[in-house]
Amino acid sequence: MNQLLLLVLTAGLLTLVFAFWKTRWIASRDPGSDRMMEIGGAIREGAMAFIKAEYRVLAVFIVAVALLLYFFNKGRGPNLELVAVSFAVGALCSGLAGFIGMRVATRANHRTTNAAVTSLNTALGVAFAGGSVMGLSVVGLGVIGLVVLFYIYEPMFIGLPQTMEVLSGFAMGASSIALFARVSGGIYTKAADVGADLVGKVEAGIPEDDPRNPATIADLVGDNVGDVTGMGADLFESYVGSIIGAMVLGSAAVTSAGMATSQLVVMPLLLAGAGILASIIGTFFVRVREGGNPQNALNLGIFGAGAITLIAAWFIAHWQLPEAVRVGGKDIAAVSVFMSALTGLIAGILIGLFTEYFTAENRAPARRIAKQSETGAGTNIIAGLSTGMFSTVAPVVVIATAIVLSYAFSGLYGIALAALGMLSTTGIQLAVDAYGPIADNAGGIAEMSQQDPEVRQRTDRLDAVGNTTAAIGKGFAIGSAALTALALFAAYTRVVGLDSIDVSQPTVMAGILFGAMLPFLFSSLAMKAVGSAAFDMIEEVRRQFREVTGLMEGTERADYAACVDISTKAALRKMVAPGLIAVLTPVLVGFLATPAMLAGVLTGITISGVLLAIFMANAGGAWDNAKKHIEGGAYGGKGSDAHKAAVTGDTVGDPFKDTAGPSLNILIKLTSVVSLVIAPLIK
Amino acid sequence: MNQLLLLVLTAGLLTLVFAFWKTRWIASRDPGSDRMMEIGGAIREGAMAFIKAEYRVLAVFIVAVALLLYFFNKGRGPNLELVAVSFAVGALCSGLAGFIGMRVATRANHRTTNAAVTSLNTALGVAFAGGSVMGLSVVGLGVIGLVVLFYIYEPMFIGLPQTMEVLSGFAMGASSIALFARVSGGIYTKAADVGADLVGKVEAGIPEDDPRNPATIADLVGDNVGDVTGMGADLFESYVGSIIGAMVLGSAAVTSAGMATSQLVVMPLLLAGAGILASIIGTFFVRVREGGNPQNALNLGIFGAGAITLIAAWFIAHWQLPEAVRVGGKDIAAVSVFMSALTGLIAGILIGLFTEYFTAENRAPARRIAKQSETGAGTNIIAGLSTGMFSTVAPVVVIATAIVLSYAFSGLYGIALAALGMLSTTGIQLAVDAYGPIADNAGGIAEMSQQDPEVRQRTDRLDAVGNTTAAIGKGFAIGSAALTALALFAAYTRVVGLDSIDVSQPTVMAGILFGAMLPFLFSSLAMKAVGSAAFDMIEEVRRQFREVTGLMEGTERADYAACVDISTKAALRKMVAPGLIAVLTPVLVGFLATPAMLAGVLTGITISGVLLAIFMANAGGAWDNAKKHIEGGAYGGKGSDAHKAAVTGDTVGDPFKDTAGPSLNILIKLTSVVSLVIAPLIK
Repeated sequence: MNQLLLLVLTAGLLTLVFAFWKTRWIASRDPGSDRMMEIGGAIREGAMAFIKAEYRVLAVFIVAVALLLYFFNKGRGPNLELVAVSFAVGALCSGLAGFIGMRVATRANHRTTNAAVTSLNTALGVAFAGGSVMGLSVVGLGVIGLVVLFYIYEPMFIGLPQTMEVLSGFAMGASSIALFARVSGGIYTKAADVGADLVGKVEAGIPEDDPRNPATIADLVGDNVGDVTGMGADLFESYVGSIIGAMVLGSAAVTSAGMATSQLVVMPLLLAGAGILASIIGTFFVRVREGGNPQNALNLGIFGAGAITLIAAWFIAHWQLPEAVRVGGKDIAAVSVFMSALTGLIAGILIGLFTEYFTAENRAPARRIAKQSETGAGTNIIAGLSTGMFSTVAPVVVIATAIVLSYAFSGLYGIALAALGMLSTTGIQLAVDAYGPIADNAGGIAEMSQQDPEVRQRTDRLDAVGNTTAAIGKGFAIGSAALTALALFAAYTRVVGLDSIDVSQPTVMAGILFGAMLPFLFSSLAMKAVGSAAFDMIEEVRRQFREVTGLMEGTERADYAACVDISTKAALRKMVAPGLIAVLTPVLVGFLATPAMLAGVLTGITISGVLLAIFMANAGGAWDNAKKHIEGGAYGGKGSDAHKAAVTGDTVGDPFKDTAGPSLNILIKLTSVVSLVIAPLIK
Repeated sequence: MNQLLLLVLTAGLLTLVFAFWKTRWIASRDPGSDRMMEIGGAIREGAMAFIKAEYRVLAVFIVAVALLLYFFNKGRGPNLELVAVSFAVGALCSGLAGFIGMRVATRANHRTTNAAVTSLNTALGVAFAGGSVMGLSVVGLGVIGLVVLFYIYEPMFIGLPQTMEVLSGFAMGASSIALFARVSGGIYTKAADVGADLVGKVEAGIPEDDPRNPATIADLVGDNVGDVTGMGADLFESYVGSIIGAMVLGSAAVTSAGMATSQLVVMPLLLAGAGILASIIGTFFVRVREGGNPQNALNLGIFGAGAITLIAAWFIAHWQLPEAVRVGGKDIAAVSVFMSALTGLIAGILIGLFTEYFTAENRAPARRIAKQSETGAGTNIIAGLSTGMFSTVAPVVVIATAIVLSYAFSGLYGIALAALGMLSTTGIQLAVDAYGPIADNAGGIAEMSQQDPEVRQRTDRLDAVGNTTAAIGKGFAIGSAALTALALFAAYTRVVGLDSIDVSQPTVMAGILFGAMLPFLFSSLAMKAVGSAAFDMIEEVRRQFREVTGLMEGTERADYAACVDISTKAALRKMVAPGLIAVLTPVLVGFLATPAMLAGVLTGITISGVLLAIFMANAGGAWDNAKKHIEGGAYGGKGSDAHKAAVTGDTVGDPFKDTAGPSLNILIKLTSVVSLVIAPLIK
């Protein structure tokens, strides 16, 4: 087994080498004009100040939880208190990945602007390099952390289930940080965005990212804080969660099958390792010749990596499982394992395509919302909400089918593998996701440094290119969240020893109802935070427009720092309550009520979390693109009444798609993994 | 048993006598000036035309479903095909109750206007008389239908469970009609309302119900179609559903306890009968002396009837259950039965009080939304959505607690009794609910017939008085829907013979996920229907303002019929899809998948339906009152930018609170009762 782990570890280390090499390459690019560097510097400064303040708060949380985990597990059995170490390491790795991503993104942004002065493709090169540093650091740190801990823990415990019990803390650490990072990043970026848009675009009628708008720098910092750090921590959590979910269920299967070897536990790590190598190879496919289509380059990278991983998965499955093993009345063979992973992959792509359909600018749903903007904001909002609700149908059918199929292939282990199937190429997927905000920032810098409009057009094009790929990434995020949560949830029921979770028991039903309410409460707090921070931001921007003489004429510089400060403070203050609800609910229900009721609560959270997440993400995306459609000239174009209505819709969509929606994906896994970690204590 | 049934039947017949007497009394009131009568006539005409067209469509549906029920149950056992008869009778009774309510409401409205010319209290008398005809017809027809069918069926079958199997069709008929009536009524009224408000109030700046607005008559017809007929069918369904749910679970308990007598089956009917008598008595408490407070009068009526019912319930329980019976390992005694019903009643009142808090004009949530309107429609909408989501917390905790407690008192039967506890005084509750739209209509007629402003103020005051009581009514609707759905759902699992519904089975989990999606799909269709009908309405009103010369000057009459036509057609066309989804889903899942998966689907529908219903109803109510708060003078009052933003929020809230939200309460029961009816076929 050790050699196998070494292989995976090597793949993990390789990503860090790659990330280091790419970072050096980015640093060697021309940083652009003084003005570009100045703006870039201001963004970097704001972002770093925020991340430092955030990590200071989170350090307190991590130390406190680690101590609790230590003391509650101390004396329960030899070495079981190490779960506290796993938790802290998971949190650290997640934080480190976010930090690396932020550093490179705030270096790549103005270099991308400068590259865009020359050509689209050079700009793509710089932006994508930045994204790939982020993507590969995330997966690299994930597997390195897991393999090293597993390597250390394994000889310390008698059985694999105990090893996995202790290792699960790693996922809990990753999920906790992810939730706080997503919520705070989402509040930060949307408070700034809503404030900048409503006063700047709607009231004052100046363009987006105009240097006269005091909220512009905060808005650009927000892209990094929310879309880079937040998303990085988010995907780190998903990635690690899906691997650990599969390993825990694998270890349960090993025990029940009485196998001497541990293929089912190691296989998820091997698949992850293969996905990492495939992702590195994939990044080399992303090359555009002058005049070529950047979209094709990105597609080649993503689908190339996916194909390589699938082929590798086929061989890994046959190598590790030369003969079928019987687990819980089901034969798990190489082919069935492969089919489960493939089911997940196909489900993820399908959900992504549906996501694309419901949100893309050139599709019927966004167009319908644009049309309904003609009669005002009221009908625009109604259309957006109903589109978001309608868009839950197809993904839910896909997820439900994937659950049934992947289970039919290889039992509960199959559900976990389906999630892993979607996420094995996270490295390159995240590279494409994180490239978006870099291009977005580059556009903002171009605008603020008053470049030729052609430069902004290039960065806009760059930003738009990643959209379809990003939609598929969202599909993977939602699909894998549902499946991973189920896997972790199944692992929890195994550990607490529940044979069944019977809905007809009133405590279970009450638990489901209570659990289903939590995503509503959680979203409410997130939206309220954005709303009130945006309110403060609007008042501040209005104040500056009113009081700072010469601002609108461009003779006086706006006070950007005041707006950065509003976002920073609001984000840090308002991330606490939603985060604590997520962590404390399973603990309180688990200790005060019964394990069965907690199972009900987890069911409820998962179900309503998945639905609300899809609803909010897609409604937000559709509003955004309906607005873009009008800005492209439809229904009177920019400045028309329809445009004003569409901007209002987009404002509502902002906290939907960038604050509450994505946080819900983390919420459902965090509550499951917390339950899994405390399971031995409450059973 | 027969004497007991006769007692209940007598109570039912008494309500009809009472309703007839009250109707005669209303007809004897002064119908007002020619102009009042003319407007009242136009409203009546539009409403009757709609209800006739609607019933024509529904007749096809009823005949088709009744035939299907007949042929599928024919030959399965002697007389089992009578379920088709029960279905048709249930549908007819529901339709009849809606028709009676509509007739009396469209007669009471202009008489209320005329009474308001003299005094507030005379107007209260007329409006409340109209409401009480509606309320008492609903409960009267409900128990008469049930008792007569039960009386006929009982000797035809060997056991009570078979009798109840056939009788369940009555609830299915009632629920089907209710769903169509609610959805179509909701679409009708909100399309007209949104259209009238957005163009009239926001664009043209003319007051609500101004005769120059072409959508005014459609708007006033909508109040009757949506709030009278729709609500009547809705409460008929709730009432009948909760009685039948308790009877079915009682019959299951009788079988399992091997009791020779059938107290548990008859007790729900006796409680309903007591509630009816208490409601009739309660209406006599609603009397105001000149200068007295109408709110106190309504409270006295409602709480007086509640107290009488509780006292009666105590005696009925002790009379019917002199000794405890043991059912499913639980002792069911007189006291435990009483406590279950009391639990439901308290839960309903608590949910109502929370509803009132989250929606009332003078409370923090609506005020906060009003404040957020200052920065525009975007922040108003975000605040409303987050308020609605937050407002799910308390009711869910109350419902979850009520489930656990009422079960602890008397098992599943206790859950059904808790629902019945809330609904036993439906008669007087509905009287208060239905009095609202009559007062509302009276105000519209006052405005249109250009009465002294004082008259409108009186009707507005009248309308406002019922608000708190109506909020409690909403709490009862939501709470009882959740509990009744659970009771029917439990009855379904008994009939199909499921011992447990195990969430850890992937088909069950997939079913829950799929089921939880349906309320989203359903709400989406309802909102989309309102949005597109409102869009047509807005275009038509704008066209008339543009093309009809002399309209704004008041020299030319608007073409009201064109607007009535748009609402009518949209409502009838768009009610079909949501209705069919509700009816067909359980049938398809039941026949194509497994009974366990259908149980999962029902769980999902119930859970997400309850949450969405609370969210939508409260968000809508809060937006409405935030607007009213601004109209009362806050943040610049009428015509200010904050007011425009608040009107947009109210527009979004309209389909939330009056179309999608209340329909969801019916959806969750309809799917459960359809499952119960088809259960013998799929097991």
